Amino acid sequence: MAKLVGFWVSPFVLRVSWALKLKGVEYEFIEEDIFNKSPLLLELNPIHKKVPVLVHGQNVIIESFVILEYIDETWKNCPLLPQEPCDRAKARFWAKFAEEKLMDSAWLAMCSQGDEKEKALNSSIEALEKIEEELKGKAKFFGGQNIGYLDLALGWIAYWLPVWEEVGSMIILDPIQFPCTIVWMENFLNHPIIKENLPPRDEMVVYFHKRSKEIAALIASSRKG
Amino acid sequence: MAKLVGFWVSPFVLRVSWALKLKGVEYEFIEEDIFNKSPLLLELNPIHKKVPVLVHGQNVIIESFVILEYIDETWKNCPLLPQEPCDRAKARFWAKFAEEKLMDSAWLAMCSQGDEKEKALNSSIEALEKIEEELKGKAKFFGGQNIGYLDLALGWIAYWLPVWEEVGSMIILDPIQFPCTIVWMENFLNHPIIKENLPPRDEMVVYFHKRSKEIAALIASSRKG
Repeated sequence: MAKLVGFWVSPFVLRVSWALKLKGVEYEFIEEDIFNKSPLLLELNPIHKKVPVLVHGQNVIIESFVILEYIDETWKNCPLLPQEPCDRAKARFWAKFAEEKLMDSAWLAMCSQGDEKEKALNSSIEALEKIEEELKGKAKFFGGQNIGYLDLALGWIAYWLPVWEEVGSMIILDPIQFPCTIVWMENFLNHPIIKENLPPRDEMVVYFHKRSKEIAALIASSRKG
Repeated sequence: MAKLVGFWVSPFVLRVSWALKLKGVEYEFIEEDIFNKSPLLLELNPIHKKVPVLVHGQNVIIESFVILEYIDETWKNCPLLPQEPCDRAKARFWAKFAEEKLMDSAWLAMCSQGDEKEKALNSSIEALEKIEEELKGKAKFFGGQNIGYLDLALGWIAYWLPVWEEVGSMIILDPIQFPCTIVWMENFLNHPIIKENLPPRDEMVVYFHKRSKEIAALIASSRKG
């Protein structure tokens, strides 16, 4: 049976869980303490020492997007990536774009104050505008009627980003500015597999409040140093 | 006919050129002035405004790794990625690793001085140690006897990195420490398609000397500001 080494609130781990559940792959979830890493994690992923790690027979796969491709290539039912090379390229492009341009800046906006927060918020909104544009005219999900790779890759926008907004007292997902994104978020969160596999929201709020304070303190001390 | 919008000395562009040549795909190369971007580039890639851009019929594909996957899925001869999902995952993982952990730090080492250079050099060597380890026991190329995705992705190590070492007066590719990498570099550079499709070394040295000085000045002025 496959094993997934993860952490309850990591969006990188959850996208892998969703993919496995969508494919109907049975797996054992091994919760990792990412603040006190286990010998198992250090052995499985000595390079990055990060979750998620998927163990499937002799194969140890790391990096969430690489794992999604592995899952899609290994279990062929319910394809995650579209069929056409051009659509596959788009899905891969937008997954990377959201990670690099939206996630990093939204996270920084949550953890910072003043000018830095403002700048990070603006970058986040600018990135989300591009994603909104990409969603225009789409059916239920990015790939049409069925949930797929890009939905899973961007799933954090639907569930984590609103929590980060609350913790950071900020608004990114303005419904007037981002109507297609809001509709997509609802479709995504209403998918039965997704709905049943989300961390408890109240515990997430507590967790990210704590993390954002720790990171704000780290940023402040690195500037003094 | 496919079109590739590129820049003569970009390792991101060259890896796409190599892939097209290996597959025997005819294409028109359109040289872009990346310091004075053309309306064509801004139209084709409004999001990142970067090369390479592959135009194939109605399809516009950006991001070099995404383009490599597109090429491999569109033209099935001479497969670039391995067949097995686990081997494909490894190739994708190491391509990303080298880009994030080795390329960025080697580039910074070339452009910086003092402690910063030392730190970047150490990071580069640490990352290369991991790649050396991965190459141990391999035949000619990463995937065996045939050149493939990971060779193309890491091709910059064989040809750009020695130029960066020269420009930055530094040593990363120590033959005693990295014997497998050195053998792989030779195999890679001796492949007929690669050998015939490399920018002139002397022009690269001039170009990167100029660029590294410009970037050093930028770094210095950003610290004063």
